[in-house]
Amino acid sequence: MGYHEFQQCIDACLRCAAICNHCASSCLQEKDVKMMTKCIQLDMECAAICYSAAQLMSLGSSKAEEMCRICADICNACATECEKHKHMEHCAECAKACHECAEQCMAMS
Amino acid sequence: MGYHEFQQCIDACLRCAAICNHCASSCLQEKDVKMMTKCIQLDMECAAICYSAAQLMSLGSSKAEEMCRICADICNACATECEKHKHMEHCAECAKACHECAEQCMAMS
Amino acid sequence: MGYHEFQQCIDACLRCAAICNHCASSCLQEKDVKMMTKCIQLDMECAAICYSAAQLMSLGSSKAEEMCRICADICNACATECEKHKHMEHCAECAKACHECAEQCMAMS
Amino acid sequence: MGYHEFQQCIDACLRCAAICNHCASSCLQEKDVKMMTKCIQLDMECAAICYSAAQLMSLGSSKAEEMCRICADICNACATECEKHKHMEHCAECAKACHECAEQCMAMS
Repeated sequence: MGYHEFQQCIDACLRCAAICNHCASSCLQEKDVKMMTKCIQLDMECAAICYSAAQLMSLGSSKAEEMCRICADICNACATECEKHKHMEHCAECAKACHECAEQCMAMS
Repeated sequence: MGYHEFQQCIDACLRCAAICNHCASSCLQEKDVKMMTKCIQLDMECAAICYSAAQLMSLGSSKAEEMCRICADICNACATECEKHKHMEHCAECAKACHECAEQCMAMS
Repeated sequence: MGYHEFQQCIDACLRCAAICNHCASSCLQEKDVKMMTKCIQLDMECAAICYSAAQLMSLGSSKAEEMCRICADICNACATECEKHKHMEHCAECAKACHECAEQCMAMS
Repeated sequence: MGYHEFQQCIDACLRCAAICNHCASSCLQEKDVKMMTKCIQLDMECAAICYSAAQLMSLGSSKAEEMCRICADICNACATECEKHKHMEHCAECAKACHECAEQCMAMS
């Protein structure tokens, strides 16, 4: 398996990583930051794992599928947390990206 | 400036990072690897800088534009090298992604 | 220039990246998170740039020095912010790591 | 578990990531590159996973241990390959760093 077989999942992971970064940064500007701390923490973890899953997939690594399994778990946790604040645009956007990434990663792993 | 203002450039950077990883890995499987060494080296550098430019942009960092300037330089160098081997699909694809990323980064910086 | 010439600076960057991640995560657990938001934001930016500077140096990239210049700027900004909260162990530790990294990066660039 | 509990493992992962980058780049300059292709491929994968394991550990993620398990596998594969070329300084250094990282990661996971 290489880049082209993984492409949809790579795209979902990279998109999710960028949106998690954006969500973390936006959460920090919310009035009630205290309410957003778990979200920011998961955003940071999710961005890290999503990018590295995308790297292993694009390198055609034999460990890409295992990585996708961990990635799906963190994406699901992040989506669940973001959904609690889905009245905020960045969290709604992030929950959506995390769900899509988790689905793609589950299909891969 | 934040995620949404930078979005096209972020997308181009992330796409370029993934395709550079794929190109590096594919170059290693070519019969005449010796001919591909400069390409692999630039692929690795380009993937690293593209991802970190995307990170700074998605975080809304005040240093994002400066980063885009370095990113454009490495993308251009990688595109030039890949074009020498554009009869190989991965290099043609990578040259295209690097060009697009360099253009987006130049527009940002 | 390659890994061995850059080694001290690479070590400082990687150490700084890890400590910034730790500081961001620890800040989120502080009682008065509102006070820490600028710190968390800069921690995230600093971790991203430090790692990518380390990557370019360890790859022996011709763009490593330019990257070190941006890295020094973000490290200095992060150190300044962390010093405002240096009664917190994680911020004191982070300010120190950022200062050391900025110095090494300035020497390189 | 957070940064301080994981510190030895984080240090080993970051050191391994940097040395893998250096090894990949050095392998590309060897006369017989063809012989080094598997090594370069594993160097790239190993650098990616080592850094992301270090990130998750320094963020205190609940998924850090699982990540360390995958990291240990790739480190071991990379060490085995590098040992075949241990007459080259960069491969000897890389094999050592990979072994140490794999041990630390096994202890964590």
